[in-house]
Amino acid sequence: MQLEDGGSSKGVRPRVVIVGGGFGGISTARGLRSTPVDVLLIDRQNHHVFQPLLYQVATASLASADIAAPIRRILHKQTHTMVAMAEVTGIDLGGRRVLTWCSTRGELAVPYDYLVIATGVEQSYFGHDEFAAFAPGLKSAVDAEAVRSKILSAYERAEVEADPAQHRDLLTFVLVGAGPTGVELAGAIAEMAKVTVKSDFRRVDPRMTRILLLDAGPRILASFDESLAQKAHARLTRMGVEIQTKAMVEHIDEKGVVVGGQRIISQNVLWTAGVKASPAGSWLRADTDRSGRVHIGSDLTLPGRPEIFVIGDTATLEENGKPLPGVAQVAIQQGQYVARAIAAQVAGKKVPEAFHYSDRGNLAVIGRNFAVLESHRVKLSGFPAWAAWATIHLGFLPQHQSQGRVLITWASAYFTGERAARLILERRSGAPSASPANQP
Amino acid sequence: MQLEDGGSSKGVRPRVVIVGGGFGGISTARGLRSTPVDVLLIDRQNHHVFQPLLYQVATASLASADIAAPIRRILHKQTHTMVAMAEVTGIDLGGRRVLTWCSTRGELAVPYDYLVIATGVEQSYFGHDEFAAFAPGLKSAVDAEAVRSKILSAYERAEVEADPAQHRDLLTFVLVGAGPTGVELAGAIAEMAKVTVKSDFRRVDPRMTRILLLDAGPRILASFDESLAQKAHARLTRMGVEIQTKAMVEHIDEKGVVVGGQRIISQNVLWTAGVKASPAGSWLRADTDRSGRVHIGSDLTLPGRPEIFVIGDTATLEENGKPLPGVAQVAIQQGQYVARAIAAQVAGKKVPEAFHYSDRGNLAVIGRNFAVLESHRVKLSGFPAWAAWATIHLGFLPQHQSQGRVLITWASAYFTGERAARLILERRSGAPSASPANQP
Repeated sequence: MQLEDGGSSKGVRPRVVIVGGGFGGISTARGLRSTPVDVLLIDRQNHHVFQPLLYQVATASLASADIAAPIRRILHKQTHTMVAMAEVTGIDLGGRRVLTWCSTRGELAVPYDYLVIATGVEQSYFGHDEFAAFAPGLKSAVDAEAVRSKILSAYERAEVEADPAQHRDLLTFVLVGAGPTGVELAGAIAEMAKVTVKSDFRRVDPRMTRILLLDAGPRILASFDESLAQKAHARLTRMGVEIQTKAMVEHIDEKGVVVGGQRIISQNVLWTAGVKASPAGSWLRADTDRSGRVHIGSDLTLPGRPEIFVIGDTATLEENGKPLPGVAQVAIQQGQYVARAIAAQVAGKKVPEAFHYSDRGNLAVIGRNFAVLESHRVKLSGFPAWAAWATIHLGFLPQHQSQGRVLITWASAYFTGERAARLILERRSGAPSASPANQP
Repeated sequence: MQLEDGGSSKGVRPRVVIVGGGFGGISTARGLRSTPVDVLLIDRQNHHVFQPLLYQVATASLASADIAAPIRRILHKQTHTMVAMAEVTGIDLGGRRVLTWCSTRGELAVPYDYLVIATGVEQSYFGHDEFAAFAPGLKSAVDAEAVRSKILSAYERAEVEADPAQHRDLLTFVLVGAGPTGVELAGAIAEMAKVTVKSDFRRVDPRMTRILLLDAGPRILASFDESLAQKAHARLTRMGVEIQTKAMVEHIDEKGVVVGGQRIISQNVLWTAGVKASPAGSWLRADTDRSGRVHIGSDLTLPGRPEIFVIGDTATLEENGKPLPGVAQVAIQQGQYVARAIAAQVAGKKVPEAFHYSDRGNLAVIGRNFAVLESHRVKLSGFPAWAAWATIHLGFLPQHQSQGRVLITWASAYFTGERAARLILERRSGAPSASPANQP
């Protein structure tokens, strides 16, 4: 298979181009493993990230390598599947070509017979992109390592600060957004401060850490049942996290945030709020919702374009009058559906009925032995939910090797409070230092 | 303890300031664990790196977190020891103060009674610093991750390249310098190409990888016995590595290297050659050798400055007419000696005899079941040496948790050829993409 080969696919196997190697794209590619098509998966990263554990990379519990796997490794047994690392810049709908850009070859147009768009979401600052410089988000492994450096550096800076009054400002963490990511991150920072770092500092008392979890809505974990959200709220409060609901962030700068007219001094503001869809909506010149999600039909195709599927967080679809949530399970199930639909069309069989989401439930973890879980009629909190969380997440990791590494890391952390990856890895930009050649 | 407290230490315990958290600095700090002094260790990084395994990070076998540990964690049980992350910019010899720079407080002068300089080495391009942009070295975790991205990106770029003739240029790796780092890196790249990546690419045959190992000297592994160097040479050749000795690199640019008037096209040039000492020589206004290493007495102090010790790669000291090698064991043993010397002085006892290096031997590993080892009269090669290498390196890792993680990773890699950390983690700088807000 060539990336750029013929405009016509006649006489050869239909070509499926998948854009995005997240949960949706990988699920589609895997679903096509026995279908007589050629598959090309394009992503700008070389790796798939298991996003539900990104917060553990951000809080130094796991290394990026533990939760990310090379996309081509995940699919390496499918010899009819090719993976290309490239940036998609647009789609030529009439010519049925994906327009890409890659570092060595520049622009490249890649023909498709079927196109699957699974490009996910980006951080959204709700029209305040200037906040991004002061409040990083958590969407990729690079993001997570940057947040990790920020958190660890706060303690390092406090340790060399003589004035204890300054410690409080340096160790104030503000998390904007109390969905699952904000809740999990707040719990993990609280635990890191109180358990892991306790004995490692001499001047700073890591228990001085102040963690504020802000949300514009009336309660945390809006997507969960209210009783579970209350339990999570109580748990976080017991861990010392200060929760402010109905708190609309008005401004963020290098000194902190302004909420309800009040300034909170903090050099550690993290953005765990909104997301917006990737630019796929504009590539497709499609009808989108306010967050840029593409409106699709119940067969997951773009209206009027039966050869183009849009899935996962890139799309929006209502079921029972409610839009499907932006979670991994929706993307995975939609990918499986698309693979079945393409296989049916290629075989000249009847395409499957409309897509239906089978809700497996919702999970959020707080610290090292507490979680909330809801699945159908089951609602669990505390240790049993945490055990379920750990088992499910271990099982879904993309590489067997990672399962072993994560298991041993979690087990060790559980008993010792140690964290595996407390590294600040940034190119230094400190004071200029003299070189030996300059010596007098 | 305060970083900046009084110029006079009278009435309080003597203060030992250690600059550098490598093998020498950590060994000194640990050696002082029961001595009635206050210890301050300053490093610009928050972590100690187990440098002998950096090449495994560069070739995606291990994650940085597996071979690096927070310095303050290593020393956390020593309550009289403080760790500060700061950049040292100079030393006020008369005032006995270390001049530092840290991001929050700017310049800060830190008084000492004893000073231990263990700042190690930097990459040296022998007066050709312009090579650095095209031929990265391997001295830190950040370096190793950059080399990893470079190596993995070469395969990704080749996979999207249609012209097979281009594959050869993209997959030509040139390693400049055939000491242990060059030899280990060459073996690891060869193995990655032939074993790990074999089934993951569709257009690129990873076996097209060409690896050139260049050295200006007459043979590889100059610090090893000649018979072992020959065995390593034969092993590398069998793995497909092309070795060129007496090959002086004249030029490096974005297109490749020039050796003996001949240009070798390569976008993957790695620098595994020289090192130079850190700027400590100029801080101390000391007498140094050509590489900037400080000449010290047999008691490891700076001549005329009995309160200042210089150890590890920062110093040069002859024993039996030969300078001590720049290896971890020398730094570790010198750190232990310095700790004993300070303890003796503090206790008013006789300081130990002159430092003597006890040579534990030399090890280099090539691929996953071959190494060369020499220790006293023992010379080993092949699998037994590899088993010894693996055992020793596992045992010396700085964190117990890491030992478990590395063991499971090596065991899995040994049987499956899988690599744990094949991640390209770089902030993207690809083509600009439209945002949903711009859509028509």
